[in-house]
Amino acid sequence: MISEEQVRASLARYVELVGAGDIDGILALYAEDATVEDPVGKPPYVGIEAISRFYREGLGRLDATARLDGSIRATRNCGAVPFCVDLDWGGSLRTIEVIDVMEFDAEGRIRSMKAYWGESNMIAREQP
Amino acid sequence: MISEEQVRASLARYVELVGAGDIDGILALYAEDATVEDPVGKPPYVGIEAISRFYREGLGRLDATARLDGSIRATRNCGAVPFCVDLDWGGSLRTIEVIDVMEFDAEGRIRSMKAYWGESNMIAREQP
Repeated sequence: MISEEQVRASLARYVELVGAGDIDGILALYAEDATVEDPVGKPPYVGIEAISRFYREGLGRLDATARLDGSIRATRNCGAVPFCVDLDWGGSLRTIEVIDVMEFDAEGRIRSMKAYWGESNMIAREQP
Repeated sequence: MISEEQVRASLARYVELVGAGDIDGILALYAEDATVEDPVGKPPYVGIEAISRFYREGLGRLDATARLDGSIRATRNCGAVPFCVDLDWGGSLRTIEVIDVMEFDAEGRIRSMKAYWGESNMIAREQP
Protein backbone atom coordinates (compact mmCIF):
# COMPACT_ATOMS: atom_id res chain seq x y z
CA MET A 1 0.00 0.00 0.00
CA ILE A 2 1.54 3.34 -0.98
CA SER A 3 0.34 6.75 0.17
CA GLU A 4 -1.65 9.38 -1.68
CA GLU A 5 1.47 11.58 -1.60
CA GLN A 6 3.58 8.87 -3.27
CA VAL A 7 0.91 8.32 -5.93
CA ARG A 8 0.69 12.05 -6.57
CA ALA A 9 4.48 12.42 -6.82
CA SER A 10 4.80 9.47 -9.21
CA LEU A 11 2.07 10.76 -11.51
CA ALA A 12 3.63 14.24 -11.60
CA ARG A 13 7.05 12.71 -12.28
CA TYR A 14 5.59 10.60 -15.09
CA VAL A 15 4.28 13.69 -16.90
CA GLU A 16 7.64 15.44 -16.45
CA LEU A 17 9.46 12.45 -17.95
CA VAL A 18 7.02 12.25 -20.88
CA GLY A 19 7.61 15.97 -21.45
CA ALA A 20 11.37 15.45 -21.38
CA GLY A 21 11.18 12.40 -23.67
CA ASP A 22 13.11 10.47 -20.99
CA ILE A 23 12.06 6.93 -21.88
CA ASP A 24 14.57 5.21 -19.58
CA GLY A 25 13.17 7.31 -16.74
CA ILE A 26 9.61 6.39 -17.67
CA LEU A 27 10.39 2.66 -17.86
CA ALA A 28 12.04 2.80 -14.41
CA LEU A 29 8.63 3.74 -12.97
CA TYR A 30 7.03 0.50 -14.24
CA ALA A 31 6.94 -2.95 -12.66
CA GLU A 32 8.44 -5.76 -14.77
CA ASP A 33 5.03 -7.36 -15.33
CA ALA A 34 3.08 -4.13 -15.83
CA THR A 35 0.39 -3.60 -18.46
CA VAL A 36 -0.23 -0.51 -20.62
CA GLU A 37 -3.43 0.18 -22.57
CA ASP A 38 -2.99 3.35 -24.65
CA PRO A 39 -5.52 4.38 -25.75
CA VAL A 40 -7.87 2.33 -23.59
CA GLY A 41 -9.74 -0.21 -25.73
CA LYS A 42 -6.61 -1.31 -27.62
CA PRO A 43 -5.03 -4.66 -26.70
CA PRO A 44 -2.69 -4.04 -23.76
CA TYR A 45 1.09 -4.13 -23.90
CA VAL A 46 2.09 -6.73 -21.30
CA GLY A 47 5.49 -6.72 -19.60
CA ILE A 48 8.34 -4.24 -19.59
CA GLU A 49 9.77 -5.35 -22.97
CA ALA A 50 6.51 -4.66 -24.81
CA ILE A 51 6.06 -1.41 -22.87
CA SER A 52 9.60 -0.35 -23.77
CA ARG A 53 8.88 -0.87 -27.49
CA PHE A 54 5.61 1.05 -27.18
CA TYR A 55 7.36 4.14 -25.73
CA ARG A 56 10.41 3.97 -28.02
CA GLU A 57 8.32 3.56 -31.18
CA GLY A 58 5.78 6.19 -30.12
CA LEU A 59 7.13 8.90 -27.86
CA GLY A 60 10.73 8.19 -28.93
CA ARG A 61 9.99 9.19 -32.54
CA LEU A 62 7.96 12.29 -31.80
CA ASP A 63 9.04 15.81 -31.03
CA ALA A 64 6.64 16.10 -28.09
CA THR A 65 6.28 17.99 -24.85
CA ALA A 66 3.81 17.36 -22.04
CA ARG A 67 2.24 19.43 -19.27
CA LEU A 68 -0.22 18.88 -16.47
CA ASP A 69 -3.77 19.95 -17.40
CA GLY A 70 -5.47 20.13 -14.01
CA SER A 71 -5.19 18.55 -10.58
CA ILE A 72 -3.93 15.04 -10.05
CA ARG A 73 -6.55 12.85 -8.35
CA ALA A 74 -4.76 10.46 -6.02
CA THR A 75 -5.79 7.84 -3.53
CA ARG A 76 -3.81 5.01 -2.00
CA ASN A 77 -2.36 2.71 -4.67
CA CYS A 78 -3.87 4.49 -7.63
CA GLY A 79 -4.64 7.78 -9.29
CA ALA A 80 -5.62 9.72 -12.39
CA VAL A 81 -3.59 12.49 -14.01
CA PRO A 82 -4.95 14.92 -16.63
CA PHE A 83 -2.29 16.19 -19.02
CA CYS A 84 -1.71 17.45 -22.54
CA VAL A 85 0.87 16.31 -25.04
CA ASP A 86 1.90 18.90 -27.63
CA LEU A 87 3.45 17.45 -30.77
CA ASP A 88 4.21 17.87 -34.44
CA TRP A 89 1.93 15.40 -36.26
CA GLY A 90 3.27 15.16 -39.80
CA GLY A 91 3.81 18.89 -40.09
CA SER A 92 0.74 20.09 -38.20
CA LEU A 93 0.84 21.03 -34.53
CA ARG A 94 -1.51 19.06 -32.32
CA THR A 95 -2.40 18.90 -28.67
CA ILE A 96 -3.62 15.55 -27.36
CA GLU A 97 -5.67 15.77 -24.16
CA VAL A 98 -5.09 12.64 -22.08
CA ILE A 99 -6.07 11.26 -18.68
CA ASP A 100 -3.84 8.42 -17.53
CA VAL A 101 -5.18 6.12 -14.82
CA MET A 102 -2.51 4.15 -12.95
CA GLU A 103 -2.38 1.43 -10.34
CA PHE A 104 0.74 0.94 -8.26
CA ASP A 105 2.16 -2.16 -6.59
CA ALA A 106 3.34 -2.38 -2.97
CA GLU A 107 6.80 -1.11 -3.99
CA GLY A 108 5.31 1.96 -5.64
CA ARG A 109 5.92 0.84 -9.22
CA ILE A 110 3.26 1.19 -11.89
CA ARG A 111 1.33 -2.07 -12.18
CA SER A 112 -1.10 -0.86 -14.84
CA MET A 113 -1.62 2.24 -16.94
CA LYS A 114 -4.71 3.05 -18.99
CA ALA A 115 -4.70 6.16 -21.17
CA TYR A 116 -8.09 7.77 -21.86
CA TRP A 117 -8.21 9.81 -25.06
CA GLY A 118 -9.96 9.65 -28.40
CA GLU A 119 -9.94 11.34 -31.79
CA SER A 120 -11.93 14.25 -30.39
CA ASN A 121 -9.08 14.84 -27.91
CA MET A 122 -6.61 15.60 -30.75
CA ILE A 123 -6.84 19.36 -31.13
CA ALA A 124 -5.20 21.35 -33.94
CA ARG A 125 -3.03 24.21 -32.71
CA GLU A 126 -2.04 27.42 -34.42
CA GLN A 127 1.57 27.77 -35.50
CA PRO A 128 3.32 29.84 -32.79
CA MET B 1 -20.23 -0.21 -29.14
CA ILE B 2 -21.18 3.44 -28.63
CA SER B 3 -19.44 6.40 -30.21
CA GLU B 4 -17.02 8.90 -28.70
CA GLU B 5 -19.70 11.54 -29.12
CA GLN B 6 -22.23 9.48 -27.13
CA VAL B 7 -19.66 8.84 -24.38
CA ARG B 8 -18.80 12.55 -24.24
CA ALA B 9 -22.47 13.57 -24.09
CA SER B 10 -23.26 11.06 -21.33
CA LEU B 11 -20.32 12.17 -19.19
CA ALA B 12 -21.26 15.85 -19.58
CA ARG B 13 -24.88 15.00 -18.76
CA TYR B 14 -23.78 13.08 -15.66
CA VAL B 15 -21.92 16.11 -14.26
CA GLU B 16 -24.95 18.33 -14.98
CA LEU B 17 -27.23 15.93 -13.12
CA VAL B 18 -24.85 15.71 -10.16
CA GLY B 19 -24.76 19.50 -10.07
CA ALA B 20 -28.56 19.64 -10.13
CA GLY B 21 -28.87 16.92 -7.47
CA ASP B 22 -31.13 15.02 -9.88
CA ILE B 23 -30.70 11.51 -8.52
CA ASP B 24 -33.49 9.95 -10.61
CA GLY B 25 -31.79 11.39 -13.68
CA ILE B 26 -28.42 10.00 -12.60
CA LEU B 27 -29.84 6.52 -11.94
CA ALA B 28 -31.47 6.48 -15.38
CA LEU B 29 -27.97 6.63 -16.90
CA TYR B 30 -26.93 3.37 -15.20
CA ALA B 31 -27.44 -0.23 -16.32
CA GLU B 32 -29.37 -2.45 -13.86
CA ASP B 33 -26.28 -4.53 -13.06
CA ALA B 34 -23.80 -1.62 -12.96
CA THR B 35 -21.03 -1.21 -10.39
CA VAL B 36 -19.87 1.98 -8.65
CA GLU B 37 -16.58 2.38 -6.77
CA ASP B 38 -16.44 5.82 -5.13
CA PRO B 39 -13.75 6.53 -4.14
CA VAL B 40 -11.81 3.86 -5.98
CA GLY B 41 -10.39 1.34 -3.49
CA LYS B 42 -13.64 1.03 -1.54
CA PRO B 43 -15.78 -2.10 -2.02
CA PRO B 44 -18.01 -1.47 -5.04
CA TYR B 45 -21.75 -0.91 -4.95
CA VAL B 46 -23.22 -3.62 -7.18
CA GLY B 47 -26.58 -3.24 -8.91
CA ILE B 48 -28.97 -0.36 -9.29
CA GLU B 49 -30.53 -0.75 -5.82
CA ALA B 50 -27.18 -0.38 -4.04
CA ILE B 51 -26.20 2.44 -6.39
CA SER B 52 -29.49 4.22 -5.67
CA ARG B 53 -28.84 4.07 -1.91
CA PHE B 54 -25.29 5.36 -2.44
CA TYR B 55 -26.51 8.48 -4.30
CA ARG B 56 -29.51 9.13 -2.05
CA GLU B 57 -27.49 8.80 1.17
CA GLY B 58 -24.54 10.78 -0.19
CA LEU B 59 -25.42 13.37 -2.81
CA GLY B 60 -29.08 13.43 -1.69
CA ARG B 61 -28.14 14.75 1.75
CA LEU B 62 -25.62 17.34 0.63
CA ASP B 63 -26.10 20.86 -0.61
CA ALA B 64 -23.72 20.35 -3.51
CA THR B 65 -23.09 21.71 -6.97
CA ALA B 66 -20.79 20.31 -9.64
CA ARG B 67 -18.93 21.70 -12.64
CA LEU B 68 -16.63 20.36 -15.33
CA ASP B 69 -12.94 20.91 -14.50
CA GLY B 70 -11.27 20.36 -17.85
CA SER B 71 -11.86 18.42 -21.05
CA ILE B 72 -13.70 15.14 -21.14
CA ARG B 73 -11.52 12.35 -22.50
CA ALA B 74 -13.72 9.99 -24.50
CA THR B 75 -13.16 6.94 -26.62
CA ARG B 76 -15.62 4.31 -27.78
CA ASN B 77 -17.41 2.64 -24.86
CA CYS B 78 -15.57 4.52 -22.12
CA GLY B 79 -14.23 7.82 -20.92
CA ALA B 80 -12.90 9.96 -18.08
CA VAL B 81 -14.42 13.22 -16.87
CA PRO B 82 -12.64 15.71 -14.57
CA PHE B 83 -15.03 17.73 -12.41
CA CYS B 84 -15.33 19.51 -9.10
CA VAL B 85 -18.05 19.17 -6.48
CA ASP B 86 -18.59 22.23 -4.28
CA LEU B 87 -20.32 21.49 -1.00
CA ASP B 88 -20.93 22.50 2.57
CA TRP B 89 -19.09 19.94 4.72
CA GLY B 90 -20.40 20.39 8.24
CA GLY B 91 -20.29 24.16 8.05
CA SER B 92 -17.09 24.58 6.03
CA LEU B 93 -17.08 25.03 2.28
CA ARG B 94 -15.13 22.42 0.38
CA THR B 95 -14.33 21.62 -3.20
CA ILE B 96 -13.71 17.98 -4.05
CA GLU B 97 -11.70 17.42 -7.23
CA VAL B 98 -12.83 14.18 -8.88
CA ILE B 99 -12.14 12.23 -12.04
CA ASP B 100 -14.84 9.67 -12.84
CA VAL B 101 -13.94 6.85 -15.20
CA MET B 102 -16.91 5.13 -16.83
CA GLU B 103 -17.52 2.15 -19.07
CA PHE B 104 -20.72 1.91 -21.10
CA ASP B 105 -22.66 -1.09 -22.36
CA ALA B 106 -23.89 -1.58 -25.93
CA GLU B 107 -27.09 0.37 -25.13
CA GLY B 108 -25.08 3.35 -23.89
CA ARG B 109 -25.84 2.82 -20.21
CA ILE B 110 -23.11 3.08 -17.58
CA ARG B 111 -21.77 -0.40 -16.84
CA SER B 112 -19.14 0.73 -14.31
CA MET B 113 -18.07 3.95 -12.63
CA LYS B 114 -14.87 4.49 -10.67
CA ALA B 115 -14.32 7.82 -8.91
CA TYR B 116 -10.71 8.90 -8.42
CA TRP B 117 -10.19 11.31 -5.51
CA GLY B 118 -8.46 11.28 -2.15
CA GLU B 119 -8.15 13.38 0.97
CA SER B 120 -5.72 15.70 -0.78
CA ASN B 121 -8.46 16.44 -3.34
CA MET B 122 -10.72 17.96 -0.66
CA ILE B 123 -9.85 21.66 -0.79
CA ALA B 124 -11.09 24.24 1.72
CA ARG B 125 -12.77 27.24 0.08
CA GLU B 126 -13.18 30.77 1.33
CA GLN B 127 -16.66 31.85 2.33
CA PRO B 128 -18.02 33.84 -0.64
